[in-house]
Amino acid sequence: MSAIQKVVLAYSGGLDTSVIAKWLEVERGLEVVTFTADLGQGEEIEPAREKARAMGIPDKHIFIEDLREEFVRDFVFPMMRANARYEGDYLLGTSIARPLISKRLVEIAHETGADAVAHGATGKGNDQVRFELSAYALDPDIKVIAPWREWDLTSRTALIAWAEKHQIAVPKDKRGESPFSTDANLLHTSSEGKVLEDPWEETPDYVYSRTEHPEDAPDTPEYIEIGFEKGDGVSLNGEVMSPATLLANLNELGRKHGIGRLDLVENRFVGMKSRGMYETPGGEIYARAHRGIEQLALDRGAAHLKDELMPRYAELIYNGLWFSPEREMLQAAIDLSQEKVAGTVRLKLYKGSAMVVGRKSPHSLYSEAHVTFEDDAGAYDQKDAEGFIKLNALRLRLLAKRDM
Amino acid sequence: MSAIQKVVLAYSGGLDTSVIAKWLEVERGLEVVTFTADLGQGEEIEPAREKARAMGIPDKHIFIEDLREEFVRDFVFPMMRANARYEGDYLLGTSIARPLISKRLVEIAHETGADAVAHGATGKGNDQVRFELSAYALDPDIKVIAPWREWDLTSRTALIAWAEKHQIAVPKDKRGESPFSTDANLLHTSSEGKVLEDPWEETPDYVYSRTEHPEDAPDTPEYIEIGFEKGDGVSLNGEVMSPATLLANLNELGRKHGIGRLDLVENRFVGMKSRGMYETPGGEIYARAHRGIEQLALDRGAAHLKDELMPRYAELIYNGLWFSPEREMLQAAIDLSQEKVAGTVRLKLYKGSAMVVGRKSPHSLYSEAHVTFEDDAGAYDQKDAEGFIKLNALRLRLLAKRDM
Amino acid sequence: MSAIQKVVLAYSGGLDTSVIAKWLEVERGLEVVTFTADLGQGEEIEPAREKARAMGIPDKHIFIEDLREEFVRDFVFPMMRANARYEGDYLLGTSIARPLISKRLVEIAHETGADAVAHGATGKGNDQVRFELSAYALDPDIKVIAPWREWDLTSRTALIAWAEKHQIAVPKDKRGESPFSTDANLLHTSSEGKVLEDPWEETPDYVYSRTEHPEDAPDTPEYIEIGFEKGDGVSLNGEVMSPATLLANLNELGRKHGIGRLDLVENRFVGMKSRGMYETPGGEIYARAHRGIEQLALDRGAAHLKDELMPRYAELIYNGLWFSPEREMLQAAIDLSQEKVAGTVRLKLYKGSAMVVGRKSPHSLYSEAHVTFEDDAGAYDQKDAEGFIKLNALRLRLLAKRDM
Amino acid sequence: MSAIQKVVLAYSGGLDTSVIAKWLEVERGLEVVTFTADLGQGEEIEPAREKARAMGIPDKHIFIEDLREEFVRDFVFPMMRANARYEGDYLLGTSIARPLISKRLVEIAHETGADAVAHGATGKGNDQVRFELSAYALDPDIKVIAPWREWDLTSRTALIAWAEKHQIAVPKDKRGESPFSTDANLLHTSSEGKVLEDPWEETPDYVYSRTEHPEDAPDTPEYIEIGFEKGDGVSLNGEVMSPATLLANLNELGRKHGIGRLDLVENRFVGMKSRGMYETPGGEIYARAHRGIEQLALDRGAAHLKDELMPRYAELIYNGLWFSPEREMLQAAIDLSQEKVAGTVRLKLYKGSAMVVGRKSPHSLYSEAHVTFEDDAGAYDQKDAEGFIKLNALRLRLLAKRDM
Repeated sequence: MSAIQKVVLAYSGGLDTSVIAKWLEVERGLEVVTFTADLGQGEEIEPAREKARAMGIPDKHIFIEDLREEFVRDFVFPMMRANARYEGDYLLGTSIARPLISKRLVEIAHETGADAVAHGATGKGNDQVRFELSAYALDPDIKVIAPWREWDLTSRTALIAWAEKHQIAVPKDKRGESPFSTDANLLHTSSEGKVLEDPWEETPDYVYSRTEHPEDAPDTPEYIEIGFEKGDGVSLNGEVMSPATLLANLNELGRKHGIGRLDLVENRFVGMKSRGMYETPGGEIYARAHRGIEQLALDRGAAHLKDELMPRYAELIYNGLWFSPEREMLQAAIDLSQEKVAGTVRLKLYKGSAMVVGRKSPHSLYSEAHVTFEDDAGAYDQKDAEGFIKLNALRLRLLAKRDM
Repeated sequence: MSAIQKVVLAYSGGLDTSVIAKWLEVERGLEVVTFTADLGQGEEIEPAREKARAMGIPDKHIFIEDLREEFVRDFVFPMMRANARYEGDYLLGTSIARPLISKRLVEIAHETGADAVAHGATGKGNDQVRFELSAYALDPDIKVIAPWREWDLTSRTALIAWAEKHQIAVPKDKRGESPFSTDANLLHTSSEGKVLEDPWEETPDYVYSRTEHPEDAPDTPEYIEIGFEKGDGVSLNGEVMSPATLLANLNELGRKHGIGRLDLVENRFVGMKSRGMYETPGGEIYARAHRGIEQLALDRGAAHLKDELMPRYAELIYNGLWFSPEREMLQAAIDLSQEKVAGTVRLKLYKGSAMVVGRKSPHSLYSEAHVTFEDDAGAYDQKDAEGFIKLNALRLRLLAKRDM
Repeated sequence: MSAIQKVVLAYSGGLDTSVIAKWLEVERGLEVVTFTADLGQGEEIEPAREKARAMGIPDKHIFIEDLREEFVRDFVFPMMRANARYEGDYLLGTSIARPLISKRLVEIAHETGADAVAHGATGKGNDQVRFELSAYALDPDIKVIAPWREWDLTSRTALIAWAEKHQIAVPKDKRGESPFSTDANLLHTSSEGKVLEDPWEETPDYVYSRTEHPEDAPDTPEYIEIGFEKGDGVSLNGEVMSPATLLANLNELGRKHGIGRLDLVENRFVGMKSRGMYETPGGEIYARAHRGIEQLALDRGAAHLKDELMPRYAELIYNGLWFSPEREMLQAAIDLSQEKVAGTVRLKLYKGSAMVVGRKSPHSLYSEAHVTFEDDAGAYDQKDAEGFIKLNALRLRLLAKRDM
Repeated sequence: MSAIQKVVLAYSGGLDTSVIAKWLEVERGLEVVTFTADLGQGEEIEPAREKARAMGIPDKHIFIEDLREEFVRDFVFPMMRANARYEGDYLLGTSIARPLISKRLVEIAHETGADAVAHGATGKGNDQVRFELSAYALDPDIKVIAPWREWDLTSRTALIAWAEKHQIAVPKDKRGESPFSTDANLLHTSSEGKVLEDPWEETPDYVYSRTEHPEDAPDTPEYIEIGFEKGDGVSLNGEVMSPATLLANLNELGRKHGIGRLDLVENRFVGMKSRGMYETPGGEIYARAHRGIEQLALDRGAAHLKDELMPRYAELIYNGLWFSPEREMLQAAIDLSQEKVAGTVRLKLYKGSAMVVGRKSPHSLYSEAHVTFEDDAGAYDQKDAEGFIKLNALRLRLLAKRDM
């Protein structure tokens, strides 16, 4: 294995990844390329440019990109088509962002002639797995450097001391220990660690950053309408929007009404349980709306197959296997089912909950003629039910007869 | 096939099943046995006795029973162990009650020497299937009579005329058309038909009978604690309770806080879509609590397998296959997983939502030692992650190499 | 429902469907269109023309078509991509032919202005379900006539008497009862009924029509090579062939070597068990070869997902749901996996068995460099295995610690 | 982590594990306990005692045990109840033996106060994973030593030199390289590596050790009958036998008739493909017989659920997860289905193939009355089929109507 010369780092501009950038240069002797992406985390990304320059990284090695539309269009929406929720609840906000970052890391490595990528995820979490499986799947020869698994800067004090020794600015609010750790993008903010580590203790109010407390949300409900085409959201209250704009608008609505909070103890791929607090305001609204439109426009056979495949699909994304043949196979099945998933869903937003209250579709499979309690004019012959039941019962009767 | 002589009817005491009782006697020449069960539907069942007597049914053929504890203990709770939700949301409140009624119908047929059972479900719905598959599975030789599939009393007017002709009392409020149809038991109330038939129209306020409107619910949250043993709820706020009592208490809490409303367009087993409004106040709270305790006390492998099996399990119950070998197989797998699912879950109830905010368990698998951001004293070696990722990536790298 | 005027009958030219054709005209007063397809059943189809004419059916209403290539290319091969076997063994030879026949029946109905289709399947079997579900899926307004479920010609004697009364020629060998019933096409011949009805009795030698008895097969093995592209067979021993030609050639090889016999008790969709004897000579060879090439060219994730989906896929085909959204979804997933399934498989045919003995592929994922017992020059670092095992074990250790 | 003092080694008595025993003592300074099990590998195990003694291991630290009955009864048969085949074909002969060895290693560690276990599996294969996951699952604090992942004796020459230096007898036939590597037990013999590494080359004749070449097998078929109770084999040709005796007898029959050879390229858990030659003579016969009896005595719902769960179940065993909650859950479901799986299966053995030709059961669900082509005396009403089909078709018709 030839020695690594140049590495592309997933760089947030924050203290930790600044230390990593410097450490890669100083301790590993590498040329460092930084990649900073706007995935809708709600922080400016331009300041990362100055910080990178301050560490002596040349402009041609500083990559700063707005990936919000690609993120929602090519990752979040395809996942939402599957109604994916990990372990029954989690909307996979962090998991779904990692493959996109890895994809760009690898592409930039190819553009700049780098032979490695690096990330700031720890050795205990899922994100290292997601970054690295994606990277390896896209370039089997790429090298990966995960400083948190290698270095000895494992205490806050050591990290800050090393930063100061190497002239990296340490913001005042980073000097102390943060009471919890977060990850954010256009889909969600996750918080974990420290004050959240006891799963019996309620999450302190100050942890929430993306949603109003339901108690502080408006006292009157708000009704909205989301339009869908081919399984994807395309409009809000009649106004056509791009994927990222739609999600951003739903985030604003969700924030206002305190929607999308989730307190979860989950099972990590690396084998331990962890407790997280997720805020997915727009995603929660969107996910419910998507199910709402499927109720009308998706056939039972397709819907039930999707429900059965979903846990596996969600697990694949959670485990970092977005770029895997099996995820792509499931996606092909799911996408085929969405061709006619179109129409409008009406939701009521109120103090923490988003409830589907109406849905209509140009491709509706709901037949009032069939279901009506009134005279159905021969649409349905109730006598058919007898034969249907009789033959469904036959094997059970033979079984009962045997076991009598 | 020998002619039917005596039939056991699932008798509510209401107008429809009274007409059926009389019709079975008059038109089919049968001896009629009535069975009326208290499943927690919220109506007195004793009045059914007088009504049956008024139709000339002898006391020995009038069966009135309180099945609430059996219903919750042997049907609702086992189903809840599976986290069952049909089509992502529906807690199967009607579906889970039918097998128990059929079981008693068949048992009473055996006790009274009846050779048939009868029910008041229509030929368009799922309930006929559930009643009949259960009955056939329990007695392969039983006959089933479903008058709604046979007679010509298909309009309200015809039914009432027939009732009056046969001296069946018609309550004033039954003379007109009901604006919707309901089914109720300790787990839920469902409403469907008529005013609910347009899935774009919001459910009118007057349809709700089991829950306060969230807007009218208390302005301050209420915290509760549910205790679990072997996957089943056993206490509320520290007070030990029987299954039915626990569910009744949770219903009261859910009612007060407007929890458990669900507006759903679902796929019936008989092949059409229908729109229903469900209110499952206590069930919704209980279902969330159960997932909460599983988060701590259930291993990942068990949890994911359960999640993958759940849609099938829910579909079996929905389709009336409670008494089937495959449901029993899945139950065996699920029940085995619940041995150590014990502890306490804390929930916050507020204006329509029930949120898990804390959980603790004597059998917790959550290891703060492993997950902590702090020094873990060697509990976990971060270097293990590299090999873990490398070997998980190997097939993806071989694939990428091939496809380069 | 308007009265039926014209019907397209799946017409074999044999006695039974000739009686049906006449019965539809005489008893139901319908204009009859006949459709006779060559699916490789091994009988001439042209004689059906004269027989139809003899019953007075005008030439424009007689459809005779060679569907062998379409059958193999669009039905058999796609199914084989899934490695489909119903209940572990059955290669679905009858099931896969029905949708194609129904498709042409419906298309011919549209061409000729017919409003109904008819078939000669009985009311006890799966074929009626397959014909009719396919027809309804392709034309929701089509009517279906299944004379065997309606008429009273249920004994052989009655049928023959009716035939003679209506001037239908009754061949001598059809006068007695056949000792078993068969269905044949290019993929298989199935035999069932009568002498096969006792599942303890070995199938008599005279039942077999498509394969030599293994005891009579050549005493020396024969080696063959099948070439694949995109998951489909394209050549035999280096010679490029069309799908139907390839299958026909494999049938000849299989016949010679006594390959593809299957004695099965299976579960019908209509709820009873039946016993059948299947001969699928070429199909058995092909199915094994397809698995052989997948072993090299298909990734583990894709392969395992396919294996998990297969039983459901096979059940859908068996149950007549070829034209269903869920079968199409599964097909989309399966087909995506086959893009690189290419190469050559070598098989040894000998006295009843077809064994894969070698396979090679331009898209092989097999890496001798990785797997070798010899020095692998760093392709694989054995130390990675420790971390892999440690993290896979972590949840099990936490579990064991809890339960100690 | 405290230093290891004493280790229990899975000891075959062969050269490799003898070197490991010595190496553990010499290089790691450990007290060594040897464990040698008879799992039916066909070699004497008593000689291992002398070899262990020769290395100075005291008698109380030499464990030699006959585990054949436990192996078949508690591992092979439960697996066979599931009809488990990995990747469609492999009967898991190696995989199923590892958990039992690990179980005894851990138990002996507890008995002797050892704090570690060791095995002779390499770092490239599945066996290391199986040994270690089982060990960790049974004792979360156990240490594992895998010398092949640690030492530098990676060439044959180095290993032999080290052996000679430490006075370990090197048998003449072990001086050269073996042309392939094998593993054997009562269920199977596997061969892999070296001459088998090119998956296009046919396995040389000399690799086979457990089966006659089909060409050399008897020219006349042999018929046998296997009896089953509760899903397990209990007799051969009417003679009641213990599990291990039954399997040994079937092995002899399979050997004679050349049954159970499998040439497979499979996907290892560690991410690479490997090519193996398996001989599972008795297992192949047994597996077919088990499916044969299930055909009669198992309900369709149970059978199809089993088929769908099987690939996952097989994968768990292959991956070393026998001692996992999810395998135990699946086993609970499977075992419940086997209560009435009883009766007799007749098979024809002939030149490489074992074909079920008859089966009978006291719990048969096959109803000749229902399936017969003859008059069924009202057992089945063919008219029921119409309603059955109509309601199964309803959703497809609504779909077709929408998409017209």
